[in-house]
Amino acid sequence: MELFLDNDDQRSLSTQLYDQIREAITDGRLPPGGRLQPSRGVAQGLAIARSTVTDAYARLTAEGYVEGRRGGGSIVVGHASSPPDLSEAPTALAPTAQAAAVRRYGVGLESHPRYDLTAGRVETRLFPLADWRRCTNRALTRLARDFGYYGDPAGSIELRRTLTHWLARSRGIATTADQIVVTHGASHATDVMARVLLRPGDVAAVEEPGYPPITSLLRFLGIEVVGVPVDEHGLVVDALPAAARLVHVTPSHQYPLGVVLSRQRRIALLRWAARRGAAVIEDDYDSEFRYQNRPLEPLHRLDRDGVVIYVGTFSKMLSPALRVGFAVVPPGLVPAITAIRQAVDAGPPPVTTHTLRAFIEEGHLDRHLRRARKVYADRYRTVRAAVASLSDSGFTPLPSQAGLHMTLQTPDTPDDKELNVRSTRHGLQLSSLRRTYQHSPPQAGIVLGFGAIPTPDIPDAIELLASLYR
Amino acid sequence: MELFLDNDDQRSLSTQLYDQIREAITDGRLPPGGRLQPSRGVAQGLAIARSTVTDAYARLTAEGYVEGRRGGGSIVVGHASSPPDLSEAPTALAPTAQAAAVRRYGVGLESHPRYDLTAGRVETRLFPLADWRRCTNRALTRLARDFGYYGDPAGSIELRRTLTHWLARSRGIATTADQIVVTHGASHATDVMARVLLRPGDVAAVEEPGYPPITSLLRFLGIEVVGVPVDEHGLVVDALPAAARLVHVTPSHQYPLGVVLSRQRRIALLRWAARRGAAVIEDDYDSEFRYQNRPLEPLHRLDRDGVVIYVGTFSKMLSPALRVGFAVVPPGLVPAITAIRQAVDAGPPPVTTHTLRAFIEEGHLDRHLRRARKVYADRYRTVRAAVASLSDSGFTPLPSQAGLHMTLQTPDTPDDKELNVRSTRHGLQLSSLRRTYQHSPPQAGIVLGFGAIPTPDIPDAIELLASLYR
Repeated sequence: MELFLDNDDQRSLSTQLYDQIREAITDGRLPPGGRLQPSRGVAQGLAIARSTVTDAYARLTAEGYVEGRRGGGSIVVGHASSPPDLSEAPTALAPTAQAAAVRRYGVGLESHPRYDLTAGRVETRLFPLADWRRCTNRALTRLARDFGYYGDPAGSIELRRTLTHWLARSRGIATTADQIVVTHGASHATDVMARVLLRPGDVAAVEEPGYPPITSLLRFLGIEVVGVPVDEHGLVVDALPAAARLVHVTPSHQYPLGVVLSRQRRIALLRWAARRGAAVIEDDYDSEFRYQNRPLEPLHRLDRDGVVIYVGTFSKMLSPALRVGFAVVPPGLVPAITAIRQAVDAGPPPVTTHTLRAFIEEGHLDRHLRRARKVYADRYRTVRAAVASLSDSGFTPLPSQAGLHMTLQTPDTPDDKELNVRSTRHGLQLSSLRRTYQHSPPQAGIVLGFGAIPTPDIPDAIELLASLYR
Repeated sequence: MELFLDNDDQRSLSTQLYDQIREAITDGRLPPGGRLQPSRGVAQGLAIARSTVTDAYARLTAEGYVEGRRGGGSIVVGHASSPPDLSEAPTALAPTAQAAAVRRYGVGLESHPRYDLTAGRVETRLFPLADWRRCTNRALTRLARDFGYYGDPAGSIELRRTLTHWLARSRGIATTADQIVVTHGASHATDVMARVLLRPGDVAAVEEPGYPPITSLLRFLGIEVVGVPVDEHGLVVDALPAAARLVHVTPSHQYPLGVVLSRQRRIALLRWAARRGAAVIEDDYDSEFRYQNRPLEPLHRLDRDGVVIYVGTFSKMLSPALRVGFAVVPPGLVPAITAIRQAVDAGPPPVTTHTLRAFIEEGHLDRHLRRARKVYADRYRTVRAAVASLSDSGFTPLPSQAGLHMTLQTPDTPDDKELNVRSTRHGLQLSSLRRTYQHSPPQAGIVLGFGAIPTPDIPDAIELLASLYR
């Protein structure tokens, strides 16, 4: 335990020691049975007379906080209590109304249900732990001479070079390492871009229904968020608010509806943005898993006006526990982005960027994706078949040809609260479609994630799901 | 290379393939010497007739982009060029004026000078790599069942519990795991707190001179930042602007001046904040290294009104490359903080939090700090002696009893630009005091970091530094 002394304090040095040790005993930092530091050592450490310390110890002993032991030493006998709760103090800090209004989206790590149909999870058992471990150990060795330094605020240049090659191969995107910024995930990339491109009070457009954390993070920046409807061709470009300075879209596989933004809409969106001087954030969060063979080109490839920011993440491809994503940005934004990353979080952890770089360069990512595609394609087909086999369920699966979730329209009842009670009772965990509506009346449905559920469990889980509506 | 086809495209399928491959050749994604995928495989992958592919390949061959090889296969012969530069497009995205005005503070990893007196760096060779590696490998094994999930937005509960014990021991701070939020460093903790506590247009007070990234990140949030002078007792509490809703201070070892916030000022600051309903962020960024034995109590310990947020970091204690810090927050703010972390970055990487937890629990942190304190105490004494031995240098070292830097007042000339030219010529890297003034006329000086320079090099480095002013 660290002891503090202050010559300007009006209490004697001995009383200061006494007060601090007594406080540590009563608030539990010094638990019963613990041993006080020998008085000689304390006196030396603080450069004070030993008697100052023994006086304090004697007083603690006299008052029953500690007991002397034969052979020397003092043992704590006082009882622990909790630290003082200051949250009821009239001066206690409170969040802004804006901050207080934000709710968490989805469930946390803590929950491991019998049947997990939560959206946003991936198969733990697919994670190539042995390969990742080898790459981590190599990264630590490589970093040995750099632990005294901050890393690159945009992420290590080696990883950014690797990502340019990987993006060219996997998504047909031509870019340079200078234009890549490594982030803590796709949402974080959007947060950084919004700070660089928008001012408080500016308007941003998001998909409705959409991914609630995007709306939350924009609102935390003081940005006005407008929800724009999504139909069977994706975002309704004609419904974009004229004032929007930024549009966030998920063109490959809309979250949550699963629709692909059509070619016509892609071109219309890019024209709209170029005309207005607005930015388009293309969040390609789960483009790696496709169950049909004709993907459309990313918006980034169609962009002739420099309005698109392409955002990707390794959360679905590999693991959400890694916390790595990236943005491909226009060159004119790079200095501001670098400055903000340096000021706020000093960039991604170098151990992670070096590990990921080795993992991609050595071919582990490609191998993992080949394996994962097979597993998820199997689950996708199994979910479709299981839903189709239900008779009279009232479920309508929305068309979905990619990613790790499929959305079902369901009857209106039970409501989310009752559904939650019933599903929890049966060990089933779900994501409601209603939660993805932030700006308009919610529609009943299930965002059915099949990333985490073993294929053989799917028929039972879907049957159980249907039973909740009977 | 990924190929895209679109039935709604007005071009034929063959032309779509031709256009994409030609574009990949001209922009360098398909380098000369590369081999096109066999037409049969492409046709199968896209579920189209093989002749559609061979037609496209024939056209590319006819136009000289590829060459057929004996035994089959087509080899790229076209020349690479850079991806199109859209930054000059009239529609190209630009940062806001606010974002464009922010400059990077300090230098990056890339620079490894002969003599490194940069502030903010620590000794690479002290990093306990073997211990950290063992803890990392154990953390990866522990995480094996959780790679499919997001972690806790506030950081793993196990690390937060460990931090409560460690804070009690090392800083006398009594808190609970629920009140701890693990961040990407001290600045990031301030960023999160500002988002939860302030709205755009609100006023925040920072120390002047101070740490420029704090001013930058607050301004990125639309917050008005006021610099408050620092004298020999620390922050001048009487000079705080009445409108300030948040005050950022470095009480243990002011950055950059090195002064300790006096006990009277601490009490005055807490009273001021409680009266105004303002928050105090206590940034204890390098409190672990102290060369005198009587530290003052943290503001957090003196707080009876719930106005203090205590912020710590492992950047100085261990390594800035780890990107881990934390905040101790009032309970009333926890839900909003958790929601914002979930929305923006989904929390710190679980591998890092599990590793750090094992590292602390197994006693490696305490052992490392004991070693590091000896090394840095030695450097501190060597710097003092070297500066004192200079005759007529015009240098005045400011009193400093802690941390990894000491500030020197210097003559006004040369100016920073000329100083930079001269120091670079001699392989000396420095941090200027002038850069730490953001709100008032800058004073000439050097923020002399001794974290990264080997002790035997210090006398030569200081002598060299003095020579730059002659």
